[in-house]
Amino acid sequence: MPSYTAPLEDMMFLFEKLRDNKNYNELEKYKEVSSDLVKDILEEAAKINQNLILPLAKAGDENPAVLENGVVRTPPGYKEAYKKYIEDGWTSLSCDPKYGGQGMPKTVSAFFDEMLSSASLSFKLYSELSIGAYNCINHHASDELKEKYLPKIVEGKWSGTMCLTEPVCGTDLGLLKTKAEKQKDGTYKISGQKIFITSGDHDLTENIIHLVIARATDSPTGTKGISLFLVPKFVVNEDGSVGPRNGISTGSIESKMGIKGSATCVLNFDDAIGYMIGKKDKGLNAMFTMMNLERIVVGIQGLGISEIAYQNSLAYAKERKQGKTNKTKSTNGADFIIEHADIRRSLLNMKSIIEGERALCFWLSQQTEVSLNHQDEKVRQEASDFVSLMTPVVKSLFTDLGMEITNDAMQIHGGYGYTKDQGIEQLYRDNRITPIYEGTNSVQAADLVFRKLSNKNGDIINKFIDLIKTETDLKNEKIKPFTKEFSFYLNILTKFSEWINEKMKTDKDDVSAAANDYLKTLGFVSVAYAWIKVLDVSFKDYNENKNFFDDKINTAKFYFDKVLPRAEQHYKSAISGSSNIMNFKFN
Amino acid sequence: MPSYTAPLEDMMFLFEKLRDNKNYNELEKYKEVSSDLVKDILEEAAKINQNLILPLAKAGDENPAVLENGVVRTPPGYKEAYKKYIEDGWTSLSCDPKYGGQGMPKTVSAFFDEMLSSASLSFKLYSELSIGAYNCINHHASDELKEKYLPKIVEGKWSGTMCLTEPVCGTDLGLLKTKAEKQKDGTYKISGQKIFITSGDHDLTENIIHLVIARATDSPTGTKGISLFLVPKFVVNEDGSVGPRNGISTGSIESKMGIKGSATCVLNFDDAIGYMIGKKDKGLNAMFTMMNLERIVVGIQGLGISEIAYQNSLAYAKERKQGKTNKTKSTNGADFIIEHADIRRSLLNMKSIIEGERALCFWLSQQTEVSLNHQDEKVRQEASDFVSLMTPVVKSLFTDLGMEITNDAMQIHGGYGYTKDQGIEQLYRDNRITPIYEGTNSVQAADLVFRKLSNKNGDIINKFIDLIKTETDLKNEKIKPFTKEFSFYLNILTKFSEWINEKMKTDKDDVSAAANDYLKTLGFVSVAYAWIKVLDVSFKDYNENKNFFDDKINTAKFYFDKVLPRAEQHYKSAISGSSNIMNFKFN
Repeated sequence: MPSYTAPLEDMMFLFEKLRDNKNYNELEKYKEVSSDLVKDILEEAAKINQNLILPLAKAGDENPAVLENGVVRTPPGYKEAYKKYIEDGWTSLSCDPKYGGQGMPKTVSAFFDEMLSSASLSFKLYSELSIGAYNCINHHASDELKEKYLPKIVEGKWSGTMCLTEPVCGTDLGLLKTKAEKQKDGTYKISGQKIFITSGDHDLTENIIHLVIARATDSPTGTKGISLFLVPKFVVNEDGSVGPRNGISTGSIESKMGIKGSATCVLNFDDAIGYMIGKKDKGLNAMFTMMNLERIVVGIQGLGISEIAYQNSLAYAKERKQGKTNKTKSTNGADFIIEHADIRRSLLNMKSIIEGERALCFWLSQQTEVSLNHQDEKVRQEASDFVSLMTPVVKSLFTDLGMEITNDAMQIHGGYGYTKDQGIEQLYRDNRITPIYEGTNSVQAADLVFRKLSNKNGDIINKFIDLIKTETDLKNEKIKPFTKEFSFYLNILTKFSEWINEKMKTDKDDVSAAANDYLKTLGFVSVAYAWIKVLDVSFKDYNENKNFFDDKINTAKFYFDKVLPRAEQHYKSAISGSSNIMNFKFN
Repeated sequence: MPSYTAPLEDMMFLFEKLRDNKNYNELEKYKEVSSDLVKDILEEAAKINQNLILPLAKAGDENPAVLENGVVRTPPGYKEAYKKYIEDGWTSLSCDPKYGGQGMPKTVSAFFDEMLSSASLSFKLYSELSIGAYNCINHHASDELKEKYLPKIVEGKWSGTMCLTEPVCGTDLGLLKTKAEKQKDGTYKISGQKIFITSGDHDLTENIIHLVIARATDSPTGTKGISLFLVPKFVVNEDGSVGPRNGISTGSIESKMGIKGSATCVLNFDDAIGYMIGKKDKGLNAMFTMMNLERIVVGIQGLGISEIAYQNSLAYAKERKQGKTNKTKSTNGADFIIEHADIRRSLLNMKSIIEGERALCFWLSQQTEVSLNHQDEKVRQEASDFVSLMTPVVKSLFTDLGMEITNDAMQIHGGYGYTKDQGIEQLYRDNRITPIYEGTNSVQAADLVFRKLSNKNGDIINKFIDLIKTETDLKNEKIKPFTKEFSFYLNILTKFSEWINEKMKTDKDDVSAAANDYLKTLGFVSVAYAWIKVLDVSFKDYNENKNFFDDKINTAKFYFDKVLPRAEQHYKSAISGSSNIMNFKFN
């Protein structure tokens, strides 16, 4: 079984030194979230993840969730762990105190999301969608629904789901067939089949609150006729107690490559009672509140799994001996593989990506809080545009690089990485869902180029480029070699953005064909931007903690030397256009 | 279950049009291998792979090989299929008629290897190592051993293994502990434990012939004291009949991420009778005969799995509807995903890599035959050097790109790709062993840079670069845009090779850290070289088969526009050197 130690030092470094967003620091509601408090929380979080949750990963892989006589049973140990998990209040971490939450900002809860992803993604998924449902209900539902449902969700006694996908409609929600028939009392009867529903049924909570998109019987076809409904597994009585079973049954659960501890369900809705959330026919907007925040969390999943893959690769490289290095001092026998240049390269590739991603994510957490909570609407809007821009990037880049890192981790483990014993191959299989769910990475790339680069507020990508240009124009002589190289790649990003902008007018297929490459270029440059921020602090505060900052500076150097150059290749590959691709006759 | 149709048209195109190696065409022994004969063979090969063997893939994944009461049982259907497989003579395809073989060249048998890899890698592995054992025995063993063992191996009644790895020695064979004690009759008693032995035990054949490396009790430590032994599961009587059980038992079989139908065994040798092959203490040389040819076959495995992944992605893209394209003509509902630019890009990425690899592999098959069979020693030697150069490239590049392609195939299938039903995720898991076994891809990269670029015959990489420079200097105006771009990347390869050559003298760690990148650059340029050959024929013979050659030309165009640019990024990333990597303090 892989071991795991939460990277508290790096997390606290970010929290203490990288809270550099002026608007974030103005937020009244987080003034009391001190370093000491955060340190206490993260230390407790580390304990529960390292001790209680980590073993659930293997347990879930060996004994997947099962459907027996219409009831979904979670793997051994999940129930007991979940009980402790909610007793300790982890489901309520980022929720509003009004509903029993602890009111922690995303600058803290994102670290918890990362740890939980490292420890067991399958277990995490049972509460992750609850937070999504909480956000969606909190933003869009009536006060009555909020008061009835949110406290129990925050407490973790009830959990949540997102029910979007149907057999013929995944990416393309306009095709959905689930219907909602209005009743005299204002409720709806929901009927239809939903598939790939994460935590769609299980035995961990007293009730499950499904957020279901469906088409009212008098609504138009396509995406303009989709409404959102709250549909509980058990109907909730007036007094808030759990009542009779609603018209929802579990048709089957999926047999999957990984995250086997997570129940992925086919749910059949048959005249199930549902309550509309938000406005009729505007369900997709409400659902996207949930989806967008959730997409960032999926990116964090990729980061978390990368971290545990790295830690175990490093430990294995320090204990496994094979072959002699170029400058071996061994007179007899082999050297530890961590002495080999190629293994070191692979480990630094992981480390430089992971720490850069974590820093970028911390930047994004501050922006997200500003977008949700700042008092100035203009400031909120600008932050929201940056969050929207970076959401598909974080979702796709972090999960794709998670595949690269778990792949490299297997490679470092050699044949032992391919067998079940070590648990390394499981990291790879578990992570493999992350580039697929919550919108495949290609869907993210299309979302980025067609909807996020510019919007009604103007040219968002240029604002972003201006922002990072200003923030990376630093005076410190030691940082100059980094900022100089950064400028070269920022210039490529600028040219690539102009190319996209131009092609948007002349040939959208060029844009579509280039979308994945563009996302990668923007992503690698954005991670480099986060590294520049880390470097700035590292040089300024160097004498405070030389070892730590040396580690940061040298890790950053690797990123700039070996990882960032990929940004250019994506540009070169993309600008050859799409006419050959579009004209190709696939036989 | 994935479907599969052997790519006979492409294979016959290569056999008929790309047999351009003058030395190969001089080989007397293959004069009678006509196109008609090859077509007949490949058509029969397609039938058995598509009909009989393909279903074994899923069967093996669902019912892995098991060890019961000391006996290894293969998955349901394997026994019956293997019986038919050897009755039809497929194990003997490339073997010497002297021992009952059909004497087909690798220009034919490599196609069979590819088809079998597409159909079921697990099933393939039960006979693949037999061919390796055949080659090794045929080249290095005494006539007595050859006559006693080879006919049964060729017939497929007996199978073979390679027993190298031990618990503390994988890559680094110098550490091996298995010992061989000489007996008065000239035989040896072999004792020790071997792990990760593919097809180490099973119920498909009457006997299993293990080729075991071990250290004679009076031999030196390290790699200079390793000898090779033939150790049969059942001792073979004087008359060639199967006698009593030898001192070999199966300790356990591995539970693996993929290729679950293949039994990967821990074998315990306890005073097992063995017969030395070749010279004492020169066992590694003999074993490398087997290993090198085997490494090319592993590359072909990656190609074969890529092919079936592509075929199923293409089929799914033609039947799945999601979203509207930029130029949709649909007034209601979604378009087929094959109309989307990004999906087309992904499919062409697969196709252009696969067909380029197949062409490169065909070039290599000709070189291999020349290296083994040409009458002029100098010609043999030169071909052998090219084969040695290209072996680690084909092994690593094809298997790494196999991961990319099976990954992209899952991505095209979305959530359905992640579930077990479609069998797509199995392709990914099965292929994941190929970058690991027969020497990890990092070991291949180190082998390439330290042993293959130059040897006692001179500067092999420069000879190779000269060869492809000459062969791609073509007059046809239509091919000029391709050769021009090719020159740019060939120049990068040349500079990169010079950099490696220089660093070899000044800092070997720079070379080690750059090895993987160098292999990729050489690989992408080599595949482009193969594409230039295909293009040359395509333009010359265009009018013979316009549709086919249009397809080739446009596929090549994609490769040159979108894939080949990666060669440069690897160069840029590598030349930043290794001092930061080597000095890094991993805490």
